[in-house]
Amino acid sequence: MTIKAYGARAGDLPLEPMNITRRTPSAHDVQIDITHCGVCHSDLHQVRSEWAGTLYPCVPGHEIVGRITAVGAQVSGYKPGDLVGVGCIVDSCQHCADCNDGLENYCDHMVLTYNGPTSDAPGHTLGGYSQQIVVHERYVLRIRHSEAQLAAVAPLLCAGITTWSPLRHWKVGPGQKVGVVGIGGLGHMGIKLAHAMGAYVVAFTTSESKREAARALGAHETVVSRNPDEMARHVGSLDFILNTVAASHDLDAFFALLKRDGTMALVGAPATPHPSPNVFNLIMKRRSLAGSLIGGISETQEMLDFCAKHNIVADVEMIRIDEINEAYERMLKGDVKYRFVIDCASLTA
Amino acid sequence: MTIKAYGARAGDLPLEPMNITRRTPSAHDVQIDITHCGVCHSDLHQVRSEWAGTLYPCVPGHEIVGRITAVGAQVSGYKPGDLVGVGCIVDSCQHCADCNDGLENYCDHMVLTYNGPTSDAPGHTLGGYSQQIVVHERYVLRIRHSEAQLAAVAPLLCAGITTWSPLRHWKVGPGQKVGVVGIGGLGHMGIKLAHAMGAYVVAFTTSESKREAARALGAHETVVSRNPDEMARHVGSLDFILNTVAASHDLDAFFALLKRDGTMALVGAPATPHPSPNVFNLIMKRRSLAGSLIGGISETQEMLDFCAKHNIVADVEMIRIDEINEAYERMLKGDVKYRFVIDCASLTA
Repeated sequence: MTIKAYGARAGDLPLEPMNITRRTPSAHDVQIDITHCGVCHSDLHQVRSEWAGTLYPCVPGHEIVGRITAVGAQVSGYKPGDLVGVGCIVDSCQHCADCNDGLENYCDHMVLTYNGPTSDAPGHTLGGYSQQIVVHERYVLRIRHSEAQLAAVAPLLCAGITTWSPLRHWKVGPGQKVGVVGIGGLGHMGIKLAHAMGAYVVAFTTSESKREAARALGAHETVVSRNPDEMARHVGSLDFILNTVAASHDLDAFFALLKRDGTMALVGAPATPHPSPNVFNLIMKRRSLAGSLIGGISETQEMLDFCAKHNIVADVEMIRIDEINEAYERMLKGDVKYRFVIDCASLTA
Repeated sequence: MTIKAYGARAGDLPLEPMNITRRTPSAHDVQIDITHCGVCHSDLHQVRSEWAGTLYPCVPGHEIVGRITAVGAQVSGYKPGDLVGVGCIVDSCQHCADCNDGLENYCDHMVLTYNGPTSDAPGHTLGGYSQQIVVHERYVLRIRHSEAQLAAVAPLLCAGITTWSPLRHWKVGPGQKVGVVGIGGLGHMGIKLAHAMGAYVVAFTTSESKREAARALGAHETVVSRNPDEMARHVGSLDFILNTVAASHDLDAFFALLKRDGTMALVGAPATPHPSPNVFNLIMKRRSLAGSLIGGISETQEMLDFCAKHNIVADVEMIRIDEINEAYERMLKGDVKYRFVIDCASLTA
C-alpha cells in the first residue's frame, strides 16, 4: 500500500512530501491511520545525520497516535476503531532476558520506529510523519484518553515514557524530593509525572523566564541553576534527579544536591561529553550517575493508563506537516512549549 | 599519657619518631595497646600533603588492631584483654540519619582516625603508627580471629571494609558474575570477599604478571584489561564491578562489560579526573556509575565476623616502624603483596 509521508532524501535537504509503502498486515499486525505525530529532537538529529548511520529516505516520527483500520487474523487484543499509539520501538527479538522482562528498550535487537532494520521496503523502518503505519501488536499501545486529547497524548509515546521509566525504576513517590533538570519536551513531562506520583518536585532551569512555567507544570519549587545561592539551599536534600538536558553541562553542581544513596539519571546523551564528574561527589555520599533509555512496552502502557487516570497530557503546539522544517528551526531555538505535534490530516490535504 | 609514635612534622619530611599524648579514658572510652597497624595508600597521601588540609605533626594509620588495656566506667561491651580493632572512623555526630542507619562513614561530622578534628592535643586526631590509642567504644570493633592472625587482620579495617561495603550494598552473591578492577591492597581483598560471598569473580589487571596471583586470591578468571580480545569476551555479562583503581583511567571499557542495570562502584578517587564517561554506555543498558566510601561501624563488625568465620585475612608483609619510609617508596612502585603492616612492638624496641 502506497501512502503519503514527509521525509528527507539527504542530511542537508529539508523534509519534503514523498510516497512510501506499508506492508499488508500479517497475522499479528495492526494497521493504524495516524492522526497525530509528535516532533522529538531525535527526529531532527536523525534526519540531519547528526547521529551515525542515517538511512535515506528518512521519515522520522516516533510519537504516533491514531485509529486502527485493520488487524491480522491472530490479533486478539485490538480491533478496528481502537485508539492506539506507537512509540520508539516496533520490533525486538522477543526472547532475550530484556524482552522477557518487558524491557524491549534494552534488547540488543530492538528495532526503532525509524531508521531501524526491516525486511519491508526500503530496508529500513519509516516513522510517523505519514498517513499510516503497520506494526506488530506487541508494540502497539492502547490509549484510554478521550479522542479530543489525542494530539496531546502523542508526546507521551516518547517524552512521556522516557521520563516515566526512570522515575518508576528509581521508585519516585510520596515523601521524596525529586529534581527535574531542564524544562523542555522531556522535562515538562518529568515535572508533570513526578508531581502526579506524589513527590515534591524541584525544577532546575538555566532560564529565569521559565520559573513561572515550571510552577504551572507542577513544580513545587524552581531553581535557576546558574544561581549558586539557590542551588546551595538544596545541597544533600534530593532523593533523585531526572536530568533531561542533552547539552554538555556541569554534572557536579547537581550531584551535590543529592542525599546519600541518591541517583541522577541522564536521559539525554550530549554530542560533546559532559565535563568529567568529580568522583569525590560520588564516593562521599554513595551517589550514582545512571542512564535510562525510553522504556519497555508494558511500562509504556502503564504510563498511558496512569496519565489517562490522572488526566495528564503533554503541552503541545499543533502544526501542519508543511510547517515541519520551520518547526525544526524553532525547536533548535527552544521556541516551543513544549512539543510540536503534527496534525497528520494535513498530509491528505 | 605520653606514648611513642611515628609521624611527619611537614609534608616534605620523612616520618620520624615522636612522642604524643593520649587522653585518659572517659566513661565510654576504650584504651588499646596497638599490636599492628596496616599501611594504606591514604597514609602516604595525607602525610605528604597531597590532599588538602594536612595538619602537622601527622601520625597516620587507620588499620589498627590490638588488645584492650582499660575501659571507661560506662563501657559494657568490652573488657581489658579483648582483641579489638579501630578503622578509619573514631567519632561522628551519633544522631543524624547516617549515624542512625549505622553509616557513620557518610555522617557530615565523621571524625577520621588521623587528621580529624578533636579536643585532644594537638587539636587533630593522631593515628595508629603508635603504641596506644583511646577511642569511644562505639567505634571499636571486636576481632574474633586468632591472636596469631592479628597482623593480617589489620588491613581488614580499611581495605577490607572499603571493598566489603559496596559488595554488600550492591548485593553481590551466588549466581552473579562480579568484576574486581585492580589487584592491590583493596583489590586483593575485593577478590577474596566476592569469592567468599559466592560470586563468580573476574579480576581485571593491566599487568600480565598478576594473572596467577589473582587466581590464587580467588579469582575464577583474570582479564588483562589492555587486551581488547580478552575484554570483549565479557561484554554485557557482569552484574557488578568493584573498581579499586585510584589512578585516572578509561571507565568506558568497563561499562561495556556490565549487564543491563549493572553498577560500577568506584572506591578510589583519582588525583586527575578519569576521562569523561560516555553517557551512551550508561543510557543504553541503564547502567550506573557509583562511589562508595569505607563503611559503617556495624557493617565493619559484620565483615570482621564474616572473615573470621571464613578464615579470611589480608596478604601482608610485616615491617618494623623504622622501615616505614622505605615501605612508602615501595608502595609507590606497587612493590607489595598486598599490604604492609607495621609490627608496633618495634616502637617500644
